[in-house]
Amino acid sequence: MGVLNDGAPVETDRCARLLLSQWCEAGDQALGARVRERGAHTVVEEALAGHSPLPASTGIGARVPSGTTYDAAIRRWVEPAWIAAERIGARYVVPGDLEWPSQLDDLRDAAPLGLWLAGAGDLRLLALRSISVVGARSATAYGEGIARELGAHLAESDWLTVSGGAFGIDAAAHRGALAVNGATACVLAGGVDVPYPRSHADLLARIRDSGVLISEAPLGGAAMRHRFLTRNRLIAALSRGSVLVEAALRSGGRSTVREARALNRVVMAFPGPVTSPMSAGCHAVIRDEAVQLVTSPREVLALVEGRLTSDDQGCADDEDLGWRERRVLDAVPARRPAPLVSIARLAGLGLAEAMTALGTLDALGLVQRAGEGWARRAA
Amino acid sequence: MGVLNDGAPVETDRCARLLLSQWCEAGDQALGARVRERGAHTVVEEALAGHSPLPASTGIGARVPSGTTYDAAIRRWVEPAWIAAERIGARYVVPGDLEWPSQLDDLRDAAPLGLWLAGAGDLRLLALRSISVVGARSATAYGEGIARELGAHLAESDWLTVSGGAFGIDAAAHRGALAVNGATACVLAGGVDVPYPRSHADLLARIRDSGVLISEAPLGGAAMRHRFLTRNRLIAALSRGSVLVEAALRSGGRSTVREARALNRVVMAFPGPVTSPMSAGCHAVIRDEAVQLVTSPREVLALVEGRLTSDDQGCADDEDLGWRERRVLDAVPARRPAPLVSIARLAGLGLAEAMTALGTLDALGLVQRAGEGWARRAA
Repeated sequence: MGVLNDGAPVETDRCARLLLSQWCEAGDQALGARVRERGAHTVVEEALAGHSPLPASTGIGARVPSGTTYDAAIRRWVEPAWIAAERIGARYVVPGDLEWPSQLDDLRDAAPLGLWLAGAGDLRLLALRSISVVGARSATAYGEGIARELGAHLAESDWLTVSGGAFGIDAAAHRGALAVNGATACVLAGGVDVPYPRSHADLLARIRDSGVLISEAPLGGAAMRHRFLTRNRLIAALSRGSVLVEAALRSGGRSTVREARALNRVVMAFPGPVTSPMSAGCHAVIRDEAVQLVTSPREVLALVEGRLTSDDQGCADDEDLGWRERRVLDAVPARRPAPLVSIARLAGLGLAEAMTALGTLDALGLVQRAGEGWARRAA
Repeated sequence: MGVLNDGAPVETDRCARLLLSQWCEAGDQALGARVRERGAHTVVEEALAGHSPLPASTGIGARVPSGTTYDAAIRRWVEPAWIAAERIGARYVVPGDLEWPSQLDDLRDAAPLGLWLAGAGDLRLLALRSISVVGARSATAYGEGIARELGAHLAESDWLTVSGGAFGIDAAAHRGALAVNGATACVLAGGVDVPYPRSHADLLARIRDSGVLISEAPLGGAAMRHRFLTRNRLIAALSRGSVLVEAALRSGGRSTVREARALNRVVMAFPGPVTSPMSAGCHAVIRDEAVQLVTSPREVLALVEGRLTSDDQGCADDEDLGWRERRVLDAVPARRPAPLVSIARLAGLGLAEAMTALGTLDALGLVQRAGEGWARRAA
């Protein structure tokens, strides 16, 4: 078990984050800052002691009965969650876990406290090569055709399609990936055990079988309206690029693209007939928000892979790398290959952790296997 | 009658340019440079004397029989042209004429030697507010609808629609302007008296009635294939902005947009379905050539008028102004209005010329009437 900055063991931190995620609405930056500064466990203890109430803006925190003991809180909120998770086969990952996708750190204080995951896929590995496909619920046949083709092409090229499971573009993108037996990930606004929309229960079950369902909402949490906007930042942050396929002038898809651009992701949109209101949002972001026009799945991949390549050239300082990857990369000698054991020792990590980080660096084209060991890849 | 740089009176220069335009293909930059350096009349005299043959690349010049006298050349090539022009009601304008559109000077050595014009409109005045609308001959109903609406909207907003009279987008744009009794101009690849395509004879007659037909090809000249590309630079140069409505990946419309961009004009394109090959060229220029995506006539005008406004702010150095306009602008006092007579005297121009230039400057928002005289307009 690892140890985090504030000295709390990972499982203590996990419990504290799980408590906070049930008391507070996701994405609250003031809470995120407090957790960063003081550690989740301390924030929980202070809240229980009534010394430092949870951020007023989160609202729900006010429901924690003052005077509740830490043990009582664990019994009331954490244990039932673990039992439910066990029953439905979900897991709660937090920063520091091997499956935690390091690109979520780009969200800084708006990063999720933790993520509920359900599904066969390893989110961190899948998210290394992931592209989000978003757009209108009331999509046209034109837009759904594009989304389906895009999902299939990404899957065939070994890229994960991330979307939100909604009607229209989202579902078409997921289905395109599933149609070629590819992996796809769905970020839900409610709990990972709450199929939403209800008529997509089968689709979500298929996504879970081959990929992963993701949510920062508590298990059983309803897909409430305000959660869709905060959910969109996760779709953006989890992907290396976001593609808007169809969108009306006012649409949630545009907010995802805006989040993605703020995170320095590749942002793309498909044009359509100027006579179609469902393409007006795409045209607006191309025209006014420096979103790149794309006309085929091939162009989408070329742009994202192009960015990947150009980012890699300044690799040692790459802010996209997690701290483990950065330490491991530093531990790989510049000239001759080194064995895993010595890389792990130099990086101060366990063998499994070091191996995972090497896998990431390999996928990013920064290191490569060389005989029995690992070497840096020439730029 | 004015006097040009090399001392040749305007009518001598006009005859020389008319001769060269019949001997040589349009757009030859080596010839343009020689005319700029030595004057058209000297270039003609040297060619007739066999001292300095016309540029080999122009080909046709070789057909001038060596030993032809200047008078013989006038009799053989100029007089028939004047007679034909008289008969069909065409005019040949050259740099220095009041109707010469000064933005053609942006073409530098590729500027036309002169232009044949036929029609009711004054080209220089019309071209002050002109936008070219170009695109595929084999346009779809979608593209033709856009072009027609654009032509009509431009006409209603007092902007000239410039196009090439071809099937498809060109014709739809012209017809859109004509439908609301607006002015439109057609730049032909053959002579202004040669309807091309033949089935557009009626359309071209209507354009002539309300606007102007333009060509640098000799009267009676055929619309030869290579003339379309050189013609496109005139469409681009005559307009403040160029709009590509529909274009296949390989298309003449793209060359017009490329010319327009090289001339620092506003370049725009309409998107369409990614499934339509006739929109692929539009998407390519938006994606790869920094052409601005537009979705409505209103956006087209906003972009062009926006550029006009921002250009005006550095007005004194504005390279778009002709030498007359610049001299007149300098002659308008910065603080108090001045009468036309004193402005004309200060600018060293005749009253009519000064008045024309003031009209141009007024249209550009640089000067305004003030009582009995004229004043600068505050930026």
